[in-house]
Amino acid sequence: MTELFKAVTITEARKIISAHYSGPKKTEMIPLLSAQGRRLAEEVRAKEDVPGFTRSTVDGFAVQARDTFGASEGLPDYLEIAGEVFMGEEPKGRLETGQVWQIATGGMLPAGADAVVMVEYTENLEEKIIGVVRPVAPGENVIRQGEDIAAGSLVLPFSHCVKAHDLGVLAAAGVTAVKVFCPLRVGIVSTGDEVVPPEEKPVPGKVRDINSYALYGAVTEAGGQPHLYGIVRDDFHRVRESLSAALSENDLVMLSGGSSVGTRDVAREAINSLGNPGVLFHGLSIQPGKPTIGAAIEGKLVFGLPGHPASALVVFHLLVAPLLYKGSYYEEENGFWEFPLTAQITRNIRSAPGREDFIRVKLFLRQGNLYAEPILGKSGLITTLVKANGLARITAGKEGVEAGETVEVKLF
Amino acid sequence: MTELFKAVTITEARKIISAHYSGPKKTEMIPLLSAQGRRLAEEVRAKEDVPGFTRSTVDGFAVQARDTFGASEGLPDYLEIAGEVFMGEEPKGRLETGQVWQIATGGMLPAGADAVVMVEYTENLEEKIIGVVRPVAPGENVIRQGEDIAAGSLVLPFSHCVKAHDLGVLAAAGVTAVKVFCPLRVGIVSTGDEVVPPEEKPVPGKVRDINSYALYGAVTEAGGQPHLYGIVRDDFHRVRESLSAALSENDLVMLSGGSSVGTRDVAREAINSLGNPGVLFHGLSIQPGKPTIGAAIEGKLVFGLPGHPASALVVFHLLVAPLLYKGSYYEEENGFWEFPLTAQITRNIRSAPGREDFIRVKLFLRQGNLYAEPILGKSGLITTLVKANGLARITAGKEGVEAGETVEVKLF
Repeated sequence: MTELFKAVTITEARKIISAHYSGPKKTEMIPLLSAQGRRLAEEVRAKEDVPGFTRSTVDGFAVQARDTFGASEGLPDYLEIAGEVFMGEEPKGRLETGQVWQIATGGMLPAGADAVVMVEYTENLEEKIIGVVRPVAPGENVIRQGEDIAAGSLVLPFSHCVKAHDLGVLAAAGVTAVKVFCPLRVGIVSTGDEVVPPEEKPVPGKVRDINSYALYGAVTEAGGQPHLYGIVRDDFHRVRESLSAALSENDLVMLSGGSSVGTRDVAREAINSLGNPGVLFHGLSIQPGKPTIGAAIEGKLVFGLPGHPASALVVFHLLVAPLLYKGSYYEEENGFWEFPLTAQITRNIRSAPGREDFIRVKLFLRQGNLYAEPILGKSGLITTLVKANGLARITAGKEGVEAGETVEVKLF
Repeated sequence: MTELFKAVTITEARKIISAHYSGPKKTEMIPLLSAQGRRLAEEVRAKEDVPGFTRSTVDGFAVQARDTFGASEGLPDYLEIAGEVFMGEEPKGRLETGQVWQIATGGMLPAGADAVVMVEYTENLEEKIIGVVRPVAPGENVIRQGEDIAAGSLVLPFSHCVKAHDLGVLAAAGVTAVKVFCPLRVGIVSTGDEVVPPEEKPVPGKVRDINSYALYGAVTEAGGQPHLYGIVRDDFHRVRESLSAALSENDLVMLSGGSSVGTRDVAREAINSLGNPGVLFHGLSIQPGKPTIGAAIEGKLVFGLPGHPASALVVFHLLVAPLLYKGSYYEEENGFWEFPLTAQITRNIRSAPGREDFIRVKLFLRQGNLYAEPILGKSGLITTLVKANGLARITAGKEGVEAGETVEVKLF
């Protein structure tokens, strides 16, 4: 029960962990269609121009733009239909001054043309003559060769998480296989003499294992590969044995459950017995999530999470999830913060100075304004998990917030 | 080139589609650990109380609350340590007036006890006597039997999409298998004489297939099961053949690419030749996304999407994605709107009255305010896909928005 460690802030905890963790290293080549949600292990550059030729963005007529200068409804420019562009084919011949070629959206501009007149701004006079009623500028209604992606340019940066639309962009660049980081393998060990698996009907005194399953889901969601190691009793040798197996087969291990003081001592001792440097911090200056252990063993990370499911998930989101979905704690480059939104809190929340508070909230809109309704309830309740769809942060240094005040929030 | 149909609004299109589509019907039982991201085909109710017994939420001493009334630092109440609760076991015996039992977080309250005093508010006097320095109310620091989930109560509603933390809640309720809807199978047919697969180096006039891949990703993201049917030429018989195969093997088919006027005619005719009622609408009063076809064939849906990838994805998000992730267009119950956030637009955007505009934007925060920077660029460009992380809506009836005005946005 002696407190060997001073509670650290989230920022301090991240610095300590980062100093003992070098990030994911294993990579693999996978086919394009499997790449969604995976993180690129190398930047992707275009091998050639996209599009590979200058093409029309409208249905109409390819022209030399200067032939249309001065055209108007009252005084159309009359031009000769000298050819037609067929989709997917290279136009044969050259467009000369005074001529137009018929062209559809996506068609290749014939040599000599530098713009396209939309069909809506032409009138058909005779079989081979059209009247253009609006001028076009050079380059109008066309995408130039390489305008979208120039050969050699960056398509997607290193460490980018491949999104749905990126599959289309990669296909456009002719990329059919990508080098990605292998998902981090995460071992989940549940502890507690009172915990039984969900298929068992608990006798009085026993409860079902919640954390293993909630964390399994959270790991999957963050792009990791979870592995359950079942439930072990709060006993040094059993915890050590299970932890040792999980460490040998995973990149990161989470020990969860067992929220009593004795359990935390067992966890700390078991971790320290398995290698160096062992426990890095024990205790976070946050609420909930205080009884958290952060440890490193020979380059792998071990987290001892609080026993309460809601607390365990808060710590998971703050300290584990970023390592799974972006490999580190560094802020993403798209300018988004970790708590990207602001909302008005609907009731007073007390906090303690020097402590960061994370409140599970239900976010909802009313007349375009975002509100955060704190989901209150005793800390051991699991149904609060279902009611909340976001997390609000009350930064350290504040003694709380009053109803109507603005808080930083994130959506789950 | 004749316009047989009047362009419809998104709301009208949804009504028309809903009238011809009865939603997903196929269900399956799957193990708990596979349920994440799946939609429940039946509500889940608790078979028994959670927790199954009254338990402590702190480390301390079980008491009869009235024995602590009036206790203070100056005048502690002295009580006898008469027993100890072991984790996971049913306490043997009964706590009598004047007694406390030692108990850890999660331990089962002994009969006779109705509250727990935190260890921090006690002082050890003799081996068997403690002093309580703060009173507790009945029920304090305990979770009563069934307080979290009462037997028979609703755990998760019908049609709920199972989230990470729900796995924990289901485990708590003893649910190890769940009945979920099978993901909708979505066939994707790409059309266009100019389109080649990504592994092919396009000769002048040809471009690589982007839409199949972007849509494949988007379908996966929305919880559907995509199947690619390759690229077919803009020819009635070939489109019909491919469409027919895709329809027989899927619940919903998307025809994409081929943005020229002729292509749309081919698509419409091919759809109408395959069954009833055929094409329901052709043309949406939105920008981008106007040249969209909505059709139903014997209870299955067919969408003809615009050829431009960015346009195809906008229509996908508005008309197809909701059917995949929630089975219908009905608003979700959690109070969220489809465009849940508001942001200040960073530049003037023109619109046309009577038309809804959807602008791809880059959302970013500055001093706690959300801004939407329109990603401009010719409609055929695909790199705009990568730059945008959200979509802004300019409702019909407005002639545009000015820089600094508030717009409704959604994050991708």
